[in-house]
Amino acid sequence: MSHAKSREDANGECRDSKSRVTIVGSGSWGSVAAKLVASNALKLPSFHDEVRMWVFEEVLPNGEKLTDVINKTNENANYLPGIKLGRNVVADPDLENAVKEANMLVFVTPHQFMDGICKKLKGKIKGEVEAISLVKGMEVKKEGPCMISNLISKELGINCSVLMGANIANEIAVEKFSEATVGYRESREIADTWVQLFSTPYFMVTPVRDVEGVELCGTLKNVVAIAAGFVDGLEMGNNTKASSSNEAAIMRIGLREMKALSKLLFPSVKDSTFFESCGVADVITTCLGGRNRRVAEAFAQSGGKRSFDELEEEMLEGQKLQGVSTAREVYEALNHRGWMEMFPLFSTVHQICIGRLKPDAIVNYRNFGPNPKL
Amino acid sequence: MSHAKSREDANGECRDSKSRVTIVGSGSWGSVAAKLVASNALKLPSFHDEVRMWVFEEVLPNGEKLTDVINKTNENANYLPGIKLGRNVVADPDLENAVKEANMLVFVTPHQFMDGICKKLKGKIKGEVEAISLVKGMEVKKEGPCMISNLISKELGINCSVLMGANIANEIAVEKFSEATVGYRESREIADTWVQLFSTPYFMVTPVRDVEGVELCGTLKNVVAIAAGFVDGLEMGNNTKASSSNEAAIMRIGLREMKALSKLLFPSVKDSTFFESCGVADVITTCLGGRNRRVAEAFAQSGGKRSFDELEEEMLEGQKLQGVSTAREVYEALNHRGWMEMFPLFSTVHQICIGRLKPDAIVNYRNFGPNPKL
Repeated sequence: MSHAKSREDANGECRDSKSRVTIVGSGSWGSVAAKLVASNALKLPSFHDEVRMWVFEEVLPNGEKLTDVINKTNENANYLPGIKLGRNVVADPDLENAVKEANMLVFVTPHQFMDGICKKLKGKIKGEVEAISLVKGMEVKKEGPCMISNLISKELGINCSVLMGANIANEIAVEKFSEATVGYRESREIADTWVQLFSTPYFMVTPVRDVEGVELCGTLKNVVAIAAGFVDGLEMGNNTKASSSNEAAIMRIGLREMKALSKLLFPSVKDSTFFESCGVADVITTCLGGRNRRVAEAFAQSGGKRSFDELEEEMLEGQKLQGVSTAREVYEALNHRGWMEMFPLFSTVHQICIGRLKPDAIVNYRNFGPNPKL
Repeated sequence: MSHAKSREDANGECRDSKSRVTIVGSGSWGSVAAKLVASNALKLPSFHDEVRMWVFEEVLPNGEKLTDVINKTNENANYLPGIKLGRNVVADPDLENAVKEANMLVFVTPHQFMDGICKKLKGKIKGEVEAISLVKGMEVKKEGPCMISNLISKELGINCSVLMGANIANEIAVEKFSEATVGYRESREIADTWVQLFSTPYFMVTPVRDVEGVELCGTLKNVVAIAAGFVDGLEMGNNTKASSSNEAAIMRIGLREMKALSKLLFPSVKDSTFFESCGVADVITTCLGGRNRRVAEAFAQSGGKRSFDELEEEMLEGQKLQGVSTAREVYEALNHRGWMEMFPLFSTVHQICIGRLKPDAIVNYRNFGPNPKL
């Protein structure tokens, strides 16, 4: 990256010309990102070997600190046990310290932490820093959706790309083949640097110039997965195997609403993005597996009698489903703009989630017919 | 349909103004098509109630003729037992007689019969007749692919639309929700008539002006399903569950090659067609289930030691897999035009089928990276 060649730090002193990467986040996906990036940083002469990883400090049952364990064993015992991250990964519990030398920041935390992290880093990021967000989720506000990449750009005053796609942290961790899409805004050179930093023989990364399209794919697909889970749960209730053409119909209709909503919100969004890993492949992956699909299936099997709160508590140890909150946010945005009828699948998912409609409303496919307005 | 209002038959006599439909074919998909069309013909005033179905005559084990059984019991005992086709369906073993009154012909036979049927009907079709092909498969010749709709148009001198999509005959038969896409050439009015004739509350049909795109989707997806079967078979051999991101990657790469090849062959093909039921949804359905996927899985599990001929014999009672022959035809076309490197997935599938490559060549995903030429 040309801007890495000669940078000045806050004191106007020249730092060296190699790029330094920090991973902000250390869950399973954050740990996998560290592993990918660390293996490439070692190989690429334009990068410092060391990859710093900001870790939200925890004390393990044996009394040790998580950062100490990571730095000692080179494994994230809590979120990705059994996987060596690479000797050049350094866990750091201090957010400001972790980012201060870096000129490339990888954000990969749960969506709800991003607001706080940005506030904490505001004014602390100096020089020409590039960011990439792996965070799935967004805040759909009435005045329009606030994408995480946009939040990062606005709060920290830096350019932010995104990386999304059909990949599951535990599969990449064991070096199973997966794909991802980098969405970039303007500079192809920056996109290529991110691609270089993440690509491995088992992780294929493709750049597309469409930040919003890629990011909306990553977010909206969770709503489609909830719909797919409902369909499967209903069919199980009927003692029949979920038919693959029903599953495929839901994915197709979901993909259509994802594309249509993305393009309405951001006219710059490209159709071709939906053919990338972040589009069709991620919809398939998330609808076939994934926790959104799994919990929604249980919800429909109970006939909607057990709440999502209860099922999340039981099945996800209190973690919250991204799809349920995204469905609500999308519903509010649609309602506010009078677009509800144009997005029958999205609206139906939310209304089922809150108990206003029964789960079997999802198979009233008649409602999802071709919409002349789209 | 306006052209149905006053038609003259071969003798210049005016027939009545209602349309008459004949189904050419009586396998399971043909029988389901008859059921769909028959239910609509009864309801729509612009259609004669009677729907004729040409049946390749067979004698059943009890000595009865198949056409007699269909006309007596209203069920196709051989290919769709237990499903009432509708009292207005009349089975007819005489091809010429079956089509002579019809002005709307629905072709739905195995691909290899179409040449003979067209030859037999040549010169026998009079007046303004419209055809639709539900036949999946094509002949990819070196000079270019000969699509079935084109064969019908050329041989019989009539316009031919197509109907393809993510649907499985046995599921539609029991009125499970499915979708389909009608590809039409010019007249939206004709497309709307076909949509009207096939649509039911459980069968959602969408018209798109792209005959070749829709037809190529229906055909090429079988090659992708073979690839998906290989991936699953290999993973089973490794005692691991097929990962959903691997499956999704194969579907995505397959869809990309389908789109690219279709557009190279027919520049009129539209991107949006691949978002329709015939595109992404049919790829998903066929890759998740379907016999192409199933037999390819068994092939890969055997490490390629058992031939497709042997497996087809065992698993399909001697029926041939469309995907294997389409893969060969596509390979020949690619080879002839020097396009092989642009379509690594398609070429690899064929080479595995004929034993030139081992099944695990399909997971050399590196070969399937973004191709700058596409």
